[in-house]
Amino acid sequence: MMDDLDRRSLIKGMMALPVVHEIASAEIVEPTDKAKFAVIGLDHNHIFSITATMQRGGGELVSVYSKNAKGLADFHKRFGDVKVAASEDEILNDPSIQLVAGAGIPDQRAQLGIRVMKHGKDYLTDKPGIVSLEELAEVRKAIRETKRTFAIMYSERLEVKAAVKAGELVKAGAIGRVVQTVNLAPHQINQPGSDARPDWFWDTKHYGGILCDIGSHQADQFVFYTGSTVADVTASQVGNFNHHDKPNFQDFGDMMLHGNGGAGYVRVDWFTPNGLGVWGDGRLFLVGTEGYIELRKYIDVAGRKGGNHLMIVDQKQTRYMDCSEVALPFGPQFISDVVNRTHVAQDQEQALLATELVLKAQKKAIRLES
Amino acid sequence: MMDDLDRRSLIKGMMALPVVHEIASAEIVEPTDKAKFAVIGLDHNHIFSITATMQRGGGELVSVYSKNAKGLADFHKRFGDVKVAASEDEILNDPSIQLVAGAGIPDQRAQLGIRVMKHGKDYLTDKPGIVSLEELAEVRKAIRETKRTFAIMYSERLEVKAAVKAGELVKAGAIGRVVQTVNLAPHQINQPGSDARPDWFWDTKHYGGILCDIGSHQADQFVFYTGSTVADVTASQVGNFNHHDKPNFQDFGDMMLHGNGGAGYVRVDWFTPNGLGVWGDGRLFLVGTEGYIELRKYIDVAGRKGGNHLMIVDQKQTRYMDCSEVALPFGPQFISDVVNRTHVAQDQEQALLATELVLKAQKKAIRLES
Repeated sequence: MMDDLDRRSLIKGMMALPVVHEIASAEIVEPTDKAKFAVIGLDHNHIFSITATMQRGGGELVSVYSKNAKGLADFHKRFGDVKVAASEDEILNDPSIQLVAGAGIPDQRAQLGIRVMKHGKDYLTDKPGIVSLEELAEVRKAIRETKRTFAIMYSERLEVKAAVKAGELVKAGAIGRVVQTVNLAPHQINQPGSDARPDWFWDTKHYGGILCDIGSHQADQFVFYTGSTVADVTASQVGNFNHHDKPNFQDFGDMMLHGNGGAGYVRVDWFTPNGLGVWGDGRLFLVGTEGYIELRKYIDVAGRKGGNHLMIVDQKQTRYMDCSEVALPFGPQFISDVVNRTHVAQDQEQALLATELVLKAQKKAIRLES
Repeated sequence: MMDDLDRRSLIKGMMALPVVHEIASAEIVEPTDKAKFAVIGLDHNHIFSITATMQRGGGELVSVYSKNAKGLADFHKRFGDVKVAASEDEILNDPSIQLVAGAGIPDQRAQLGIRVMKHGKDYLTDKPGIVSLEELAEVRKAIRETKRTFAIMYSERLEVKAAVKAGELVKAGAIGRVVQTVNLAPHQINQPGSDARPDWFWDTKHYGGILCDIGSHQADQFVFYTGSTVADVTASQVGNFNHHDKPNFQDFGDMMLHGNGGAGYVRVDWFTPNGLGVWGDGRLFLVGTEGYIELRKYIDVAGRKGGNHLMIVDQKQTRYMDCSEVALPFGPQFISDVVNRTHVAQDQEQALLATELVLKAQKKAIRLES
């Protein structure tokens, strides 16, 4: 390393290196197939974006079922006068429906998926889709038996434009071989003006714990960007540092991962302060043998406007990419997968590997005193 | 969490939140004491900044000793015609010298420090100061017996203006209670035009491994910002992903920590690419119960000029602080510590706790295949 004076002169000298600014683009995937789908489970408003994504991808929404009256009212407000099924079975027994999407209470999602697959349909669930290793084994068994798809909407990669662009860059070898991924994923419990969280939000029994829940997005990114097909948890920690009135809640978690494609680290927390203005300053750092990528997904804190910021540094230069115009491929890819029995939008094994990692991490986590 | 459309509207809406820009200042510590010091060991050019810091703090450089001829020539070029001692003993036996500073080969530093303390002098070493747990026990014993100081120059906090400012903010409660620290500390092996690394750089036997070496800066920050007095390593990993011609080198390491003041995570690597223009895009993230701080210490990649960038978000607002004008207190504080037998500049126990953590992390690290 340089001594500090040398560092300073280099920091000044550095400004001579030009920074390239680009408006990033990526391959546009047009919807080419059509499939009828229904929605079961409206307990998290993620169902709005999941439904909209299916519609954009060629999905035709035919009916909805939920016992959650407010969820139904909100869903109708957003998607118009969608037919309400009299029961879950009405949807499951409708042979014209090829896909069921849902965002019920997390500990009900896996069993619903198994029922859906056993009725010959594919399933797309909000994350976390599975909250225990026992459920995961049941899901894998049902996939083997039914040959249907159990997809999990890891939206923090699949529905984030900068994350899509990062995937393209990594695949093209822009930073060499990926060595490690770091996800810093703070979330906000209640944005000013938002609805209060439901009771299940505060109880790990229902949502599986912080690593299982918001950690699953991050484990998905580790698996995807490292390309790991085999991976394990080196260590994990969870804690409840500042929500002592909710003893079954976890407001902090982290995990260290390693796989056959590289290493990974994930931190999740519920400490986003109101002064940020968005729900979380989500970051992804990809270290490669020949460069690195940073994503500022939802905000460039005290910096540029909007979200979807990508910085890439390689052996030659530093580039800033505005990814706000990148097209999201998941919707059309997934609808085509449903029609063609393929797994382009999401690799089934990797989707479940990500979930397996967080379930193991949750189970073995050291509980931090606070 | 919001659904994606809501997110987007909030991202746009966010820009209504004003971001406060400040030129940060911090308490200025003037040199008030004087102490004679000598330098032993010139094998890393960190000795330049260490020596300059002591001089700025009130230290009077009286002599130097090293067997490294190039090191001596460079030292003379930088600090003028400093007297070269005939032997280490000449310095150790000079009762006028109160302090010895050094940057020898890492595995020689602890033993030198013990000899220095046994001659009634204080010691300030480049990091890593200690490369084994056995040496650490010897150092602690010597401190107890001699009542002298074994200080370690963790320059990535002590000599970084933004890091000094962050310490002030944390102490003032600006982000509530610290929950976790994350250090991402990429380093560059050779900047364009720099001297080749010496042989000892490539062999963990001499430098202790990547966590012991550049990780020690980061463990120091974890201990300092969380205020931990008791801490342990949850898990650690090391690997040599891309330097297979140097089989005893480690180019990647990470460690998960927990202490009585909070949690910590550290990633270190030697993958800084040439296109960055500085030796490393060092980051520090401090998550608190009421806000967070991010430091971009040496560069704001594809962003603002120079180094020492601090972002702080609390429940009310987001602030950007340019810390380039903050005064560094370590030099004057440390010289006063030498004179007054105090530990203001660096807590002796915490300095050694940081080293203990990295030595344990190094010892228990899982070796990643690559």
